[in-house]
Amino acid sequence: MAKTTLTISSKNYSSWSLRGWLLAKFAGLEFEEVVTAPDDAAARAEILLLSSSILVPCLRHEGATIWDTLAIAEYLNEIRPEAGLLPADRIRRAHCRSICGEIHSGFTTLRASLPVNLKGHFPGFKIWSRAQADIDRVCTIWRDCLKVSGGPFLFGARTMADAMYAPVVTRFMTYDVKLEPDLAAYAGTIMAMPEMQEWIEAAKAEPTDIEELEVEY
Amino acid sequence: MAKTTLTISSKNYSSWSLRGWLLAKFAGLEFEEVVTAPDDAAARAEILLLSSSILVPCLRHEGATIWDTLAIAEYLNEIRPEAGLLPADRIRRAHCRSICGEIHSGFTTLRASLPVNLKGHFPGFKIWSRAQADIDRVCTIWRDCLKVSGGPFLFGARTMADAMYAPVVTRFMTYDVKLEPDLAAYAGTIMAMPEMQEWIEAAKAEPTDIEELEVEY
Repeated sequence: MAKTTLTISSKNYSSWSLRGWLLAKFAGLEFEEVVTAPDDAAARAEILLLSSSILVPCLRHEGATIWDTLAIAEYLNEIRPEAGLLPADRIRRAHCRSICGEIHSGFTTLRASLPVNLKGHFPGFKIWSRAQADIDRVCTIWRDCLKVSGGPFLFGARTMADAMYAPVVTRFMTYDVKLEPDLAAYAGTIMAMPEMQEWIEAAKAEPTDIEELEVEY
Repeated sequence: MAKTTLTISSKNYSSWSLRGWLLAKFAGLEFEEVVTAPDDAAARAEILLLSSSILVPCLRHEGATIWDTLAIAEYLNEIRPEAGLLPADRIRRAHCRSICGEIHSGFTTLRASLPVNLKGHFPGFKIWSRAQADIDRVCTIWRDCLKVSGGPFLFGARTMADAMYAPVVTRFMTYDVKLEPDLAAYAGTIMAMPEMQEWIEAAKAEPTDIEELEVEY
């Protein structure tokens, strides 16, 4: 049997890598990390938002190759139903998938103007009005979920939605986005997850900075 | 029991509306169409690629509200498994979800530079190099699928992937994108579906043109 692997790129800069990695951890999957070289053209293009598609992360498991984050989430939910990556209730499951889909296809201004950078911290960062609209929408999504579930995670227990929104939490920390108390508590819950701490440690130890990547563009 | 409804926007311009509508048709769902007014701010923003998120289409069914296209696809697959929206085989199902995810989150250049416009036809349309990279990637995806399945649809029988790529097929027709024979045959299969014909007829009868929508931006 071939090894189970998860291909990721930069731990400091790649939001999609973080999502896929958290999903695999939430599912309790044993896997080997394959890190694409920072000078790999495809990895650079993804981090710099230049690729036509996002092909990282990529999960290889028992003959299946899955290269989209939501596809990985659904696959993991099928092979590890006991992990509860989706809520058990039909209506809440539909809600969970809707907000996962929303962050998967939308929020392009947020992505472009507040890029993930776990090493960075920018107090008083000036937020562009269209990015603010994205932030407001994220807050509405979180508020609606937490009101129904009561927390600590968006749907009570941890689901794929928390992995999908984790890089948004880190953006809010990096760029000093002010949050109302309930949402700040949720952000704190995400940041305090042992998996998140492990990822951030590794990101901080990463030698490459994005300035080096940009040189060739 | 409340009625089952699918909220959509313009049939001529909205790629997401087409996807959601085709998915519901593929699933054999009975639903009532709710068409957002063309002067509705959210509908305009979506069509003009100005919204932070895509909130159309929106399916309401037995207490569930689902506003993302992939979430709708997964929901329909759960309630209508007999429709075969996903391949039965685990590995091909993972493949199908990967390419659905890819078109859901990526191809921003293709979306922006070759917008869906079913009434339009632009022979010899000049394609920008980054849009060409997107087109090349779509062709690779289709070629890989058709090689394994033998057609006529991407995974043999009709799946959610064909609904997800249907607006790409219409873009290729509108902007006169040249396709190799096997891919042109696939595009022809999509265009010939009775559901597609029904949608295109309705799009052509639609009075609003995007110039009117743009006036206020």
